[in-house]
Amino acid sequence: MSTPMPNLATAAGPVLEFERRILDCVPEIEHWFRLQWQEHTPPFYCSVDLRNAGFKLAPVDTNLFPGGFNNLSEDTLPCAVQAAQVAIEHICPDAQRLVLIPERHTRNVHYLLNVARMVRILSSTGLQVRIGSLSQEITAPTAIGLPGGESLLVEPIVRNGRRLGLANFDPCVVLLNNDLSAGVPEILQGLDPAQTLLPPLHAGWCVRRKSNHFSCYDEVAGAFARLVQVDPWMINPLFARCGEVDFRDTASNECLVSQVDNLLAAIREKYRTYDIRQKPFVIVKADAGTYGMGIMTVHDAAEVAALNRRQRNKMAIVKEGLKVSEVIIQEGVPSYEKVEHGVAEPVVYMIDRYVVGGFYRVHPERGIDENLNAPGMHFVPLAFHCSCNLPDQRAAPGASALNRFYIYGVIGRLALLAAALELERFNPLNDLAAAGLAAAGATAPALAG
Amino acid sequence: MSTPMPNLATAAGPVLEFERRILDCVPEIEHWFRLQWQEHTPPFYCSVDLRNAGFKLAPVDTNLFPGGFNNLSEDTLPCAVQAAQVAIEHICPDAQRLVLIPERHTRNVHYLLNVARMVRILSSTGLQVRIGSLSQEITAPTAIGLPGGESLLVEPIVRNGRRLGLANFDPCVVLLNNDLSAGVPEILQGLDPAQTLLPPLHAGWCVRRKSNHFSCYDEVAGAFARLVQVDPWMINPLFARCGEVDFRDTASNECLVSQVDNLLAAIREKYRTYDIRQKPFVIVKADAGTYGMGIMTVHDAAEVAALNRRQRNKMAIVKEGLKVSEVIIQEGVPSYEKVEHGVAEPVVYMIDRYVVGGFYRVHPERGIDENLNAPGMHFVPLAFHCSCNLPDQRAAPGASALNRFYIYGVIGRLALLAAALELERFNPLNDLAAAGLAAAGATAPALAG
Repeated sequence: MSTPMPNLATAAGPVLEFERRILDCVPEIEHWFRLQWQEHTPPFYCSVDLRNAGFKLAPVDTNLFPGGFNNLSEDTLPCAVQAAQVAIEHICPDAQRLVLIPERHTRNVHYLLNVARMVRILSSTGLQVRIGSLSQEITAPTAIGLPGGESLLVEPIVRNGRRLGLANFDPCVVLLNNDLSAGVPEILQGLDPAQTLLPPLHAGWCVRRKSNHFSCYDEVAGAFARLVQVDPWMINPLFARCGEVDFRDTASNECLVSQVDNLLAAIREKYRTYDIRQKPFVIVKADAGTYGMGIMTVHDAAEVAALNRRQRNKMAIVKEGLKVSEVIIQEGVPSYEKVEHGVAEPVVYMIDRYVVGGFYRVHPERGIDENLNAPGMHFVPLAFHCSCNLPDQRAAPGASALNRFYIYGVIGRLALLAAALELERFNPLNDLAAAGLAAAGATAPALAG
Repeated sequence: MSTPMPNLATAAGPVLEFERRILDCVPEIEHWFRLQWQEHTPPFYCSVDLRNAGFKLAPVDTNLFPGGFNNLSEDTLPCAVQAAQVAIEHICPDAQRLVLIPERHTRNVHYLLNVARMVRILSSTGLQVRIGSLSQEITAPTAIGLPGGESLLVEPIVRNGRRLGLANFDPCVVLLNNDLSAGVPEILQGLDPAQTLLPPLHAGWCVRRKSNHFSCYDEVAGAFARLVQVDPWMINPLFARCGEVDFRDTASNECLVSQVDNLLAAIREKYRTYDIRQKPFVIVKADAGTYGMGIMTVHDAAEVAALNRRQRNKMAIVKEGLKVSEVIIQEGVPSYEKVEHGVAEPVVYMIDRYVVGGFYRVHPERGIDENLNAPGMHFVPLAFHCSCNLPDQRAAPGASALNRFYIYGVIGRLALLAAALELERFNPLNDLAAAGLAAAGATAPALAG
């Protein structure tokens, strides 16, 4: 507990009231989560980017293929292993062999360290873990060196009938750490349902939409806000979407301009209510996709109309050449956490229903209203130095890292629950069965309690 | 990882082979445990005293009402909380309020610190936790001061019809940390089955017998030894029992003398097989009971016949005035772990199916063949300084604390599984239903796999 905790520039007023509210409701909150997890299955793993504005604490991005496990403190490993054991017990108690499928860009050292950390966690649960690559460059088992002298053995993935595996290795579980931005490769399609694929293919960015996630989060945040009796806006960024944007064609951006305008007006209204003397802003980003490409901060709708060619091109393409035509416009939540004058953004990691740790992305040269997960962005990871599951009722408001991390864990789990709802509801298999279900009067399950 | 790990005087030969064997089988072992927990419900919590003789590593006592949680490292708290969450989800997902019933001797500071630690773990899962006392001295809510300035509020337990609780507090779960040596108090009898009582009453020492536990452990150790292909004796202390001993009447001790003699002969045979040049010994102790009272080390059956009056009296009575007439004679496992010349005995703690930590009892002035948990015995707790669930395949044999603690966790879990079997099989309710079950051809479940 000796590492410094980031400062909160505005650790007063609403944020302290909110902290008190959450801490007063710990039994109700944990009971509520237990009920939810009886109805909804959490994704195998998940990381959530949070923004703490003091007056507001909200998730801004929910990642179902989390990298960055290597940024968590070593101290969190035992809990991560235990959580992974629980997940395996729930999902596939008979599992003995697991293949992990990482991203194709297997030369990024940070990412490789993440893969190594995941292998260590999963192996410690007692699974035989091997790494299977979708990359066409990997045609034979290839040892990739890591800093520190260790290495990762990456093997070509092979298809045997309807089963996926490696040469002479037939896994019970295939765990994706590849977000499928470029679509679902044929080798992953039509697998034997007896072979557990985690997370399901429709968690990939080729299918997933941020706006679907945040519409589920609306519901979760609403129910939670009723439970702890706060304004749901305290934990929920407003958002809107536009389905057909062509950044290279100014004329087609009317929807975007008007949505930005509406959203800014709605935020301004909230700021007035709470006497927040800030300039509202929104973040415009691809509705599908990740890696912080194609993201911009907008303070005025006029900025959207006035984009120059370079900015347009930057917005038009995200990862793996995917074109952006659907965008989400999200309320900007300023980040008021600072570590030695750098802006800090917390990221919470979960396995199954358990928060296993987190870290801060610390950006030495970045503004409080900018996206902090942009491509090539330099950040310094600062691991949470204590646990997220030990609220300290005795601490003075705002003084305890245990309490701040507990609350981050609560908000992270709200986003996790939204992801669970999202994966249930936006499952392409549902569409196939929809007619039959509708005829039988069945509906997708709602939030419990 | 800076704290010293106890030395193993004989960290060579068999112990290293055994360590290698276990580490080679981690996937099989963890898979095997997963299968067992599908068939058998672990007790809510458990601590297991182990003895590491170098040539042998075995549990010698399994406690279903563990004290000493305060001796675990603070670092283990997050995992303990997570494990307790899993236990609550399994046992009573709807739980919100819990009453903890501690031992009556509520003035022992070490024990009070254990209670405080348990309250912290359980509260952090989101339960409202209060302490209910069976002591007749507690007639009103009483704050008991703890070193460090905090205090515990202990309240009189009250019975409302068939439900147990405190004034204006009706718990979903009642957790016993009182081993019921003196029998089951009337207030705990005939409770509403809808109110979960953990562990069940027949886990109390008024019903439980060490010999039943170790007969279940025989089965568990046998199955596990087949799995990892070692001699089950490597992990299992031989034992025998005598049902009617009166220590004050020398004539009634024939059974004891002959059992001691037989057991010593059997150990001698094993020592010959493995070329162990030690003098065998056995431990004679009450078959019911705890707290290390009524325990003696015997190297020769003649010693039993030659007990003096003081020794007889000491053996005849255990905790709360309970008379000893049933004894277990257990193979003595010498302890070869040392911390700065003190003998060290590991104790492993589990919640639900998870090892949450452990500590060494370090006895500065005690022999390697003596019981280390005797009344009034001075010991210095030395918390395990790293986790029990992170085996390190890369470490050299014998060199890694992670590996040694992992193996302790495996043996601890074997005893935990034996306790699960014991609670299933030696449940007085079974006797009531036995006739009907036998007629229907049903039998108690056996080990899976």
